[in-house]
Amino acid sequence: MSESDNPLAVGIDFGGTSVKIGVSRADEILELAEPIETRAHPDAVSLIDAMSDQVASFREKYAGIAAVGAGVPGLVDFDRGHTHELTNVRGWEHLPFRDMLAERTGLPTTIDNDANCMVYAEWRYGAGRGMKNIVALTLGTGIGGGLVLDDRLYRGSQFGAGEIGQMSLDFAGKDGPYGNTGAIECYMGNQRITELAIAHYAKAGIEKSPEECTPKALADAAASGDETALAIWNQLAEWLGTVLSGIVWLLNPDAVVIGGGVAKAGDLLFEPLREKVRSTLSPVLQEHMQFLPARFGNEAGIIGSAAQAVDAIARA
Amino acid sequence: MSESDNPLAVGIDFGGTSVKIGVSRADEILELAEPIETRAHPDAVSLIDAMSDQVASFREKYAGIAAVGAGVPGLVDFDRGHTHELTNVRGWEHLPFRDMLAERTGLPTTIDNDANCMVYAEWRYGAGRGMKNIVALTLGTGIGGGLVLDDRLYRGSQFGAGEIGQMSLDFAGKDGPYGNTGAIECYMGNQRITELAIAHYAKAGIEKSPEECTPKALADAAASGDETALAIWNQLAEWLGTVLSGIVWLLNPDAVVIGGGVAKAGDLLFEPLREKVRSTLSPVLQEHMQFLPARFGNEAGIIGSAAQAVDAIARA
Repeated sequence: MSESDNPLAVGIDFGGTSVKIGVSRADEILELAEPIETRAHPDAVSLIDAMSDQVASFREKYAGIAAVGAGVPGLVDFDRGHTHELTNVRGWEHLPFRDMLAERTGLPTTIDNDANCMVYAEWRYGAGRGMKNIVALTLGTGIGGGLVLDDRLYRGSQFGAGEIGQMSLDFAGKDGPYGNTGAIECYMGNQRITELAIAHYAKAGIEKSPEECTPKALADAAASGDETALAIWNQLAEWLGTVLSGIVWLLNPDAVVIGGGVAKAGDLLFEPLREKVRSTLSPVLQEHMQFLPARFGNEAGIIGSAAQAVDAIARA
Repeated sequence: MSESDNPLAVGIDFGGTSVKIGVSRADEILELAEPIETRAHPDAVSLIDAMSDQVASFREKYAGIAAVGAGVPGLVDFDRGHTHELTNVRGWEHLPFRDMLAERTGLPTTIDNDANCMVYAEWRYGAGRGMKNIVALTLGTGIGGGLVLDDRLYRGSQFGAGEIGQMSLDFAGKDGPYGNTGAIECYMGNQRITELAIAHYAKAGIEKSPEECTPKALADAAASGDETALAIWNQLAEWLGTVLSGIVWLLNPDAVVIGGGVAKAGDLLFEPLREKVRSTLSPVLQEHMQFLPARFGNEAGIIGSAAQAVDAIARA
């Protein structure tokens, strides 16, 4: 089947702030609807109705929409199509979201965790395309991740796999949200990077505001040769590299794919990260491992959820 | 197929010191040959001839031996049946071991890494029987491990997966063998445990010899209420728990199965370990995760390699 034979599908990227819905074919988003404000809806049913209305209006315009996929911010029972509980969105505990959406749209539907949709997009159409085993992560407010192992999305026994952000960097380190000491997310979430940078600059006798210490500002500063900013990126690469090295030893993947806002720093992060991890591996692992920037940004959720839905039809 | 319908197979547990060969049916070893001394053979061909002679003599006695499986101490190309390089055994670089063995014995043959054979035994017939996802590890001279994910042995892209011992406990910690700082194996190998214990006792003003500080001696001391020995087991549980917690966040398995000499300490290790890891997980992971002692000891290599060989016939 060539790319152009791929069916159309609707992808739903459901976030705590807004719900983005688009029509996609393979790696291309043909049209993006106006985002729905998550909090403008008083309950889950009302929000699902709004999503379904958008799907219906896309179907009037595009013949041949074959499926709907949704990525949600939280733990999902993929097999049953239930949400367990969402991060920052109330009223979604133990909801049969997949069937509610399928009933309203009349289309084959899949739902999954948003990080899994991102990984799926990168594996099917992005940086990890055609690879057997990939680890993917997004560096943003927090650290999310997912795994494709032996040519399949690996979800874990309770569909909870991929929580790279909760893995420990330092057994005697900072307290994590679950009593887990030294969780990497407590060192490398957006906000933590800003705090780290303010402290680094203060040590160098320079006072900086939080706005001057966002990952974006730090990338710009490092690109202009600011030594302190460069040192901060090296520190972040060392931390992240330690955790990723462990994952590579455990899973021996073809590639680690990294996206999210922090990853926009590009080589400022990737170069020391590659160096750090390569220097901690056996020759065989060193030779084959790749660190790749994610291909997709904000569109990963729509492309990945739509692709999951289409591929589920093909398997059924 | 009932257990008693399982075919007979020969399992070969190839170690740096000796090669153990047995006839097994499912989880039972029917007969164990006299071990072959690895170093008594000048080269690989001579050793493979000796293994094959043993298989032939078993076949004279047992009708219906259907396959041969071997576990080797090092990295293996499972698909091609080559060894890459073995730990502590020279002359096995890039050797087509599987085909050499198959040619000499005339039987369907599989070879795999020894840790994978151990995991396979525990998954097929041991503590992780019938589970979808397990992580297994052995705590001995070093720390070896392996993974069954989505009902299959997961080997990784270059068959190198499962190296739990090289995962970092502390990004600023001890130097590991591959430049990997804080590798757990550098804290919890047999020898390291002895060193740790001697230091702990010295701090308490007690002089101890290495013989008094083996994992076995420390387990006996802790069982008799020795506070220092108890503190050492708690420390080991905290270290191991940190790394295993990270693995559980990443893979969300049904169980972690732990074997090897150090695991013989039993609840002295398992109780603080369970407590440590449970206290660092989300409610969903906490509820479902199990920490289980391995069922098999030294026989795991033979049972696991034979089981792999038998199952490979069934799949072929």
